[in-house]
Amino acid sequence: MNIAVIGLGYWGPNLLRNLYETRRCHRLVACDLNASKLERAQLRYPSIEVTTDFNTVIADGDIDAVVIATPVSTHAPLAQAALEAGKHVFVEKPMASNKEEAMQLIELAERRQRVLMVGHTFEFSPPVLKIKEVIERGDLGDIFYISSSRVNLGLHQKDISVIWDLAPHDFSSIFFWLDEMPKYISAMGRDYVQRGIPDVAFINLEFASGVIAHVQVSWLAPSKLRRTTLIGSAKMLVYDDTENIEKVKIFDKGVDYKDPETFGEYQLSYRAGDVVSPRLDTYEPLFKEMEHFLDCCETGQRPKTDGYNGLRVVKALEAAEKSLRNGSQVVEIE
Amino acid sequence: MNIAVIGLGYWGPNLLRNLYETRRCHRLVACDLNASKLERAQLRYPSIEVTTDFNTVIADGDIDAVVIATPVSTHAPLAQAALEAGKHVFVEKPMASNKEEAMQLIELAERRQRVLMVGHTFEFSPPVLKIKEVIERGDLGDIFYISSSRVNLGLHQKDISVIWDLAPHDFSSIFFWLDEMPKYISAMGRDYVQRGIPDVAFINLEFASGVIAHVQVSWLAPSKLRRTTLIGSAKMLVYDDTENIEKVKIFDKGVDYKDPETFGEYQLSYRAGDVVSPRLDTYEPLFKEMEHFLDCCETGQRPKTDGYNGLRVVKALEAAEKSLRNGSQVVEIE
Amino acid sequence: MNIAVIGLGYWGPNLLRNLYETRRCHRLVACDLNASKLERAQLRYPSIEVTTDFNTVIADGDIDAVVIATPVSTHAPLAQAALEAGKHVFVEKPMASNKEEAMQLIELAERRQRVLMVGHTFEFSPPVLKIKEVIERGDLGDIFYISSSRVNLGLHQKDISVIWDLAPHDFSSIFFWLDEMPKYISAMGRDYVQRGIPDVAFINLEFASGVIAHVQVSWLAPSKLRRTTLIGSAKMLVYDDTENIEKVKIFDKGVDYKDPETFGEYQLSYRAGDVVSPRLDTYEPLFKEMEHFLDCCETGQRPKTDGYNGLRVVKALEAAEKSLRNGSQVVEIE
Amino acid sequence: MNIAVIGLGYWGPNLLRNLYETRRCHRLVACDLNASKLERAQLRYPSIEVTTDFNTVIADGDIDAVVIATPVSTHAPLAQAALEAGKHVFVEKPMASNKEEAMQLIELAERRQRVLMVGHTFEFSPPVLKIKEVIERGDLGDIFYISSSRVNLGLHQKDISVIWDLAPHDFSSIFFWLDEMPKYISAMGRDYVQRGIPDVAFINLEFASGVIAHVQVSWLAPSKLRRTTLIGSAKMLVYDDTENIEKVKIFDKGVDYKDPETFGEYQLSYRAGDVVSPRLDTYEPLFKEMEHFLDCCETGQRPKTDGYNGLRVVKALEAAEKSLRNGSQVVEIE
Repeated sequence: MNIAVIGLGYWGPNLLRNLYETRRCHRLVACDLNASKLERAQLRYPSIEVTTDFNTVIADGDIDAVVIATPVSTHAPLAQAALEAGKHVFVEKPMASNKEEAMQLIELAERRQRVLMVGHTFEFSPPVLKIKEVIERGDLGDIFYISSSRVNLGLHQKDISVIWDLAPHDFSSIFFWLDEMPKYISAMGRDYVQRGIPDVAFINLEFASGVIAHVQVSWLAPSKLRRTTLIGSAKMLVYDDTENIEKVKIFDKGVDYKDPETFGEYQLSYRAGDVVSPRLDTYEPLFKEMEHFLDCCETGQRPKTDGYNGLRVVKALEAAEKSLRNGSQVVEIE
Repeated sequence: MNIAVIGLGYWGPNLLRNLYETRRCHRLVACDLNASKLERAQLRYPSIEVTTDFNTVIADGDIDAVVIATPVSTHAPLAQAALEAGKHVFVEKPMASNKEEAMQLIELAERRQRVLMVGHTFEFSPPVLKIKEVIERGDLGDIFYISSSRVNLGLHQKDISVIWDLAPHDFSSIFFWLDEMPKYISAMGRDYVQRGIPDVAFINLEFASGVIAHVQVSWLAPSKLRRTTLIGSAKMLVYDDTENIEKVKIFDKGVDYKDPETFGEYQLSYRAGDVVSPRLDTYEPLFKEMEHFLDCCETGQRPKTDGYNGLRVVKALEAAEKSLRNGSQVVEIE
Repeated sequence: MNIAVIGLGYWGPNLLRNLYETRRCHRLVACDLNASKLERAQLRYPSIEVTTDFNTVIADGDIDAVVIATPVSTHAPLAQAALEAGKHVFVEKPMASNKEEAMQLIELAERRQRVLMVGHTFEFSPPVLKIKEVIERGDLGDIFYISSSRVNLGLHQKDISVIWDLAPHDFSSIFFWLDEMPKYISAMGRDYVQRGIPDVAFINLEFASGVIAHVQVSWLAPSKLRRTTLIGSAKMLVYDDTENIEKVKIFDKGVDYKDPETFGEYQLSYRAGDVVSPRLDTYEPLFKEMEHFLDCCETGQRPKTDGYNGLRVVKALEAAEKSLRNGSQVVEIE
Repeated sequence: MNIAVIGLGYWGPNLLRNLYETRRCHRLVACDLNASKLERAQLRYPSIEVTTDFNTVIADGDIDAVVIATPVSTHAPLAQAALEAGKHVFVEKPMASNKEEAMQLIELAERRQRVLMVGHTFEFSPPVLKIKEVIERGDLGDIFYISSSRVNLGLHQKDISVIWDLAPHDFSSIFFWLDEMPKYISAMGRDYVQRGIPDVAFINLEFASGVIAHVQVSWLAPSKLRRTTLIGSAKMLVYDDTENIEKVKIFDKGVDYKDPETFGEYQLSYRAGDVVSPRLDTYEPLFKEMEHFLDCCETGQRPKTDGYNGLRVVKALEAAEKSLRNGSQVVEIE
């Protein structure tokens, strides 16, 4: 296969490296407006081709697929151009700046029968997949609520808020685990450092199933937190992505409700059993993601993180940002 | 002084012990409906008097002050009866079930010229006082936001929600630090274990000064968290009350904004200096609190945690509970 | 039963409280040279008798057993007097100042057919018992080595070294787990704060079975460590007594040796599976210990921590101290 | 300058990368017996030269210096050949298999007036340098003792014991801090996995100044520990290299001895003040080390980690290994 990577900023070089390491790309083209970034890439991978011109990539009939890792506002236009040129598209998260753009990409990909995959890498990561497995096995019982913190000092983006920068990770993981998207979203936040660009947000999500979730994102925090807690009726789970070895811990803890008929008055009893930290696979999620994209391009199968998957995240981001800018009013997602 | 402690449930025995240890109480009377609790108290402190009848306490002209540690719904009625009988009153947090009750107590205490003190113990605790000192010295710069988690497994209350049970601690500390109460409050929560009694809540507070705060309280969590982060323009502070020795940590971290005039485009630079965990005093906060109450009774001085201090917490609790029960709608506090 | 507690210093009041709470003592007598300590005890437990005179306790034919919690140098003389007076004896760890004294107590108790129990409380504690269970089930495979740290700032003793103060806990736990005492002991240490009284020691233990153990004890350390690691051929275990909930963790980790015949050269492969923190019982070890002593007194059964159990700890302490004072020379235990 | 890197195993590629990034090497030659490793290096750095033949490097009069990162047993022979060919030499730690070899290299380098530098990278690392600075400023007072743990699961070496593999880091740091090498060394250890190759060791070091140190190294441990504690008369310091941000913590803790003349009996009082984690520089130690080597080659200055620096580590390793193989007998270092 012949693949072009568009954008060699912060994340693009990782995509390039993993594509390279799959050894499945016959031609590998890197495209960026900044020639020095291309030079650095070619120094490292002498066999790749480079160009500063996106249009030559699009016009190149030999290129099967493009992988887009540019600023968010350009995701949709570039993906659209590539799809229209008949290429498969992998686009980084969030897939578009708004749901209309996202919807257009989905329709275009379907019309042109091309693969459209969104880079929700966490859905390929060992801890997130292990948690999905634990949930599906019923170990947690009914999920009550989820609480997540994704905070650290910086890196302040200049074009998007902290919601669009950090919340896609939590949203995609949570929607994946619950197999559901939220019905109501609200968010409180502020723009402390750069006027107009919120750098801290507290986001509430309410799901039709009764689950609620809280996601806290910030570029202003003294230390890095990547901590998600899932509370179920049977067990509780903590996922701490900053831990080296015990990233996922399952607590056999809960409250048991004893029937009032037996006791006159109902009674609650607290249960505390073993804590288990399951073994996790150790592969690089991005590599699995790139392999999956190449597989989809070759076989035509629908990607796990397809356009609809990307769309629901965009809808939630839009709703959260809207609420934040409207005094935390609750936004209903249709 | 002659003091009566009303209620020997979970917290009352601690008040009794600390009053006893002040060695400033001539008569110390314990009152509870449950005779076996009185018996246990008297076994431990043979010199105290006990009674199951609140009215004999009230009618006893020799009793100077009462200390109330009964269920929340009885706080205001008992305090009112005591004030009307001309006694000084210390009442546990929250001081009343609603702001009307709280206001009546304040007015009554003023009319009768009696001390009315509310048991916001955290305002007497070494870490909370140290943080106040750090803020007043200007070390944190302008405070941007505060985020707090107070969660653990249980103890589910049967008469009040987790908001009324746990949030008083965070509210009183935050209002004390900021010297301000919030203008807008919203809260999302659910009642998972006991129908009608929320056991998890995510509370947003917005202050007129621009500060925002988030407080997360829950009786459903795998491990105990008592963690508050204060983010300022100059430094950041973490207060972890589950730590034994480094409860308060001050991070010399922040973002500096460089003027666009100098650089063409503005620049952000991140700063990371020393981390300091200041030495904290080691006394028991409750002891200081009881001493302060006795001092106020003797001198007539206004307590640090007076009725107005208690009232603002009650107002905030009411607003949070109201928002939670109204689909997280933002509630304005007049 | 009628029991006397001798010594109300640091530990004695805990023994008294637990004996009291068993509700199995008809008479409970407290004995200390310091009258104010007796007063405090009686204030708390009005029903107990007190005396400053050990001899009246000994002479009191009604007293069935004594519980000794005095300075180490007095353990043996007091225990001896009590045994000779026909009383059962519980003596705190270490049971004596040297092995000769310990041996005499054992012989005396046997001759007089009295119970002699030593206060190695850890052998009654939930984590230590859980570890014993894990080992006996074979979960760890062959035990390779054990490493333990028991350090904190203070409390410097004035009559015994840090070895005699802190190492009894590790020694009794390790010998209990291994069911073996060491053959060789060496120790390096120094007396930094008080001349002649070592306040830090690094102790090596070698067992005939091939196991080795290292025990580090210190009164000079910035924070409290209570951490023991057991490395087995099959699994590894960490016991951290400063943790609140995950005191014991079992790591399914190890190295597998692959036969050279299959591979030309032998290969090592590393294995990392789940980490499990088993649920532990939550009772107070001291209460179990006191119950066990009373049971033994009543039934005549031999205590779990009998004189021989106490003797092997004394032998090891003596050897360690001797090595420390002789330039870390290895001492063989006969 | 023209530099050759000998050995592209585990560590060599890091040296190569840092040399490359100094941009100070005119020619950069990589030498390894394994052609595929050379190929991988050249793919990454197309401008470098490669060879499988060490002799062509030696014979190449244009090469100014060699950087040796081969198995330990080959360090001295290769370094000797290079020095004899008139080249400057950087050799990885430990510099030789025994002190005789090390001494010969030192003499040879002096005779040929070539730079001989040993790769004790820790002496270039920000935390180790910060600790040196803290000690020299007198903040810790007199150093009492040092305790260090360097353990993790694997990687079992096949040619050297865990002492020769891991202890060089601790030894070089400790000797650097104290500016002193030990007078007596003893070690207890075992070879559990590979016969004849100890995989765990507990090493005692005694210094003429009165300081003692304990170093624990192991390839058999459930989790990675890199923790060194320095106890001084004035303050205590913990260096935890597995921490991301607070690698070094200084505890204002200690014991104060009060004169018996004032109190009748002497008194000890414990002091606990602030805990400070100083800001550390964030450069890569290896880069500084390579820069320093290049500087020394250019200017002829004596490297910080010169042959004598390397020799004292080799002497200590030899002594520790000897003690371990002789029943933990104390070995005196002349």
